Amino acid sequence: MVAKLKGVVAPVLTPFNDDMSIAEDLFLEHAAYLLENGCVGLAPFGTTGEALSIGLDERLDMLERMVESGIDPARLIPGTGLSNLPDTVHLTKHAMELGCEGAMVLPPFYYKTVTDEGLFSYFAKLIETVGEDETRLYLYHIPQVAGVGLSIDLVARLKTAYPGQVAGIKDSSGNWGNTKTLLEIDGLVVYPSAESVLPEAIALGAAGCITATSNTNAADLGEIAREIFNGRSNEVAAKLESAKAYRALLQEHDFISGQKWLMANSSGDPRWKNVRPPLVPLSAEMGESLHQKLS
Amino acid sequence: MVAKLKGVVAPVLTPFNDDMSIAEDLFLEHAAYLLENGCVGLAPFGTTGEALSIGLDERLDMLERMVESGIDPARLIPGTGLSNLPDTVHLTKHAMELGCEGAMVLPPFYYKTVTDEGLFSYFAKLIETVGEDETRLYLYHIPQVAGVGLSIDLVARLKTAYPGQVAGIKDSSGNWGNTKTLLEIDGLVVYPSAESVLPEAIALGAAGCITATSNTNAADLGEIAREIFNGRSNEVAAKLESAKAYRALLQEHDFISGQKWLMANSSGDPRWKNVRPPLVPLSAEMGESLHQKLS
Repeated sequence: MVAKLKGVVAPVLTPFNDDMSIAEDLFLEHAAYLLENGCVGLAPFGTTGEALSIGLDERLDMLERMVESGIDPARLIPGTGLSNLPDTVHLTKHAMELGCEGAMVLPPFYYKTVTDEGLFSYFAKLIETVGEDETRLYLYHIPQVAGVGLSIDLVARLKTAYPGQVAGIKDSSGNWGNTKTLLEIDGLVVYPSAESVLPEAIALGAAGCITATSNTNAADLGEIAREIFNGRSNEVAAKLESAKAYRALLQEHDFISGQKWLMANSSGDPRWKNVRPPLVPLSAEMGESLHQKLS
Repeated sequence: MVAKLKGVVAPVLTPFNDDMSIAEDLFLEHAAYLLENGCVGLAPFGTTGEALSIGLDERLDMLERMVESGIDPARLIPGTGLSNLPDTVHLTKHAMELGCEGAMVLPPFYYKTVTDEGLFSYFAKLIETVGEDETRLYLYHIPQVAGVGLSIDLVARLKTAYPGQVAGIKDSSGNWGNTKTLLEIDGLVVYPSAESVLPEAIALGAAGCITATSNTNAADLGEIAREIFNGRSNEVAAKLESAKAYRALLQEHDFISGQKWLMANSSGDPRWKNVRPPLVPLSAEMGESLHQKLS
């Protein structure tokens, strides 16, 4: 399967008003900005987007707003995975009907000691219920957060059983060995979750990456990916080193609240600092540390 | 706060039809049976009830069916906790409006490295949004499944801030030291999750227990709890030992699929064997083993 979105895909941050409703204005503005400044696509409602802190209706509604605002749905891979099948079917069907490139689906993540057999059956049922002709999934492997991962065997088995429906995978494990092995699965579009491995990953056939830091570093990351795809890795080697250092700094200060703090400062809109519980906003002390280290 | 439901509360199994819809007939029949045969209350939509595999609308609908079927809502403590606030507010409000004794609420369980501050803020926002006069919560501590627990400090802080809204806790940690410490929190109604500790727990003020095995051992467990409350622990000591052995056997064969297998056999209705993915039905081999060990 040829990747439709080759380059940097942004797992869009979700901004909130002070009453904790979604700040639609900031969200749509940020999404449009990312697509105009380096990102080839958007993956709203991922872990960075606090998706699992957002209600079912809000997710349906906000995805529709994105498309209505003029964003090409072919550039969208929204997260649609919950821990239960009926609501995951609902979100996935909705994304496919809107014309999205695909739906990014977590494994059901409540029970932690599940078998590959049970997970296979979950994804099979999802595809069959949404409809084989209508479904295009990107599996979402982030075991350190979800508490449930997708084994190589399971991914290969799903790709073999549903070659047209299982388009790809986002590997957020941070384990390069795992990403490399996924890249050997025939026809699977693979997005690692960090820019750090872009040269090696693209050399082995990766479609680019879906990285948290693209929310505040889109232009540089977009250029890095483009140049690597054009065989000009050397020309962007220094830029990649800076991007890696920036990533390490953000990671130290939290990708979500840290980048929201930066967005609040650069936009002058303090609503950007809001996160939904159970997350907490970046502390003043950490904000100061981030500010000093970036200046 | 005086416990309204003193004794054994059943975390009701949820039966499914072969097409994986909820088998309403079996569900209502089982619920009524449990209340007539030893249980003082029901906690539908818990971990044993595969709650996180059930969709939002299904949960609303099935709770209404229970009440319409004649079950007194004052005997119900349905699970209403998801990983996001808006839908948790919706389910909780709905349960309270139906007149339920309380709502059992998990901590938001997607992000795993959250702070007590973030969790406090989540529960505070839940109570304030549902309405202080309308909310009566039972916290649900099951860290080995949810991946996020409720520290003693957090529970005490919540009980102090919201004495009328935080009624109690179900402690499914299986850690007796934790249960004992929770029993020291003033006014907190505490339900351990296993019959094994009933004598010690009731002696320290516990309200009884909410135990998975009550689905297939309600009469014995109900009698054990009643007699212990009546100061007649010795009279049911042998019965408690049998119940503990039965529990150990079920645990070895899986509480959910194992008990569903037993229900299918005793009722003659094979739909009882169904579980929703990612869980898998008990294997024929394990079923045979369970059968042999029980005969």
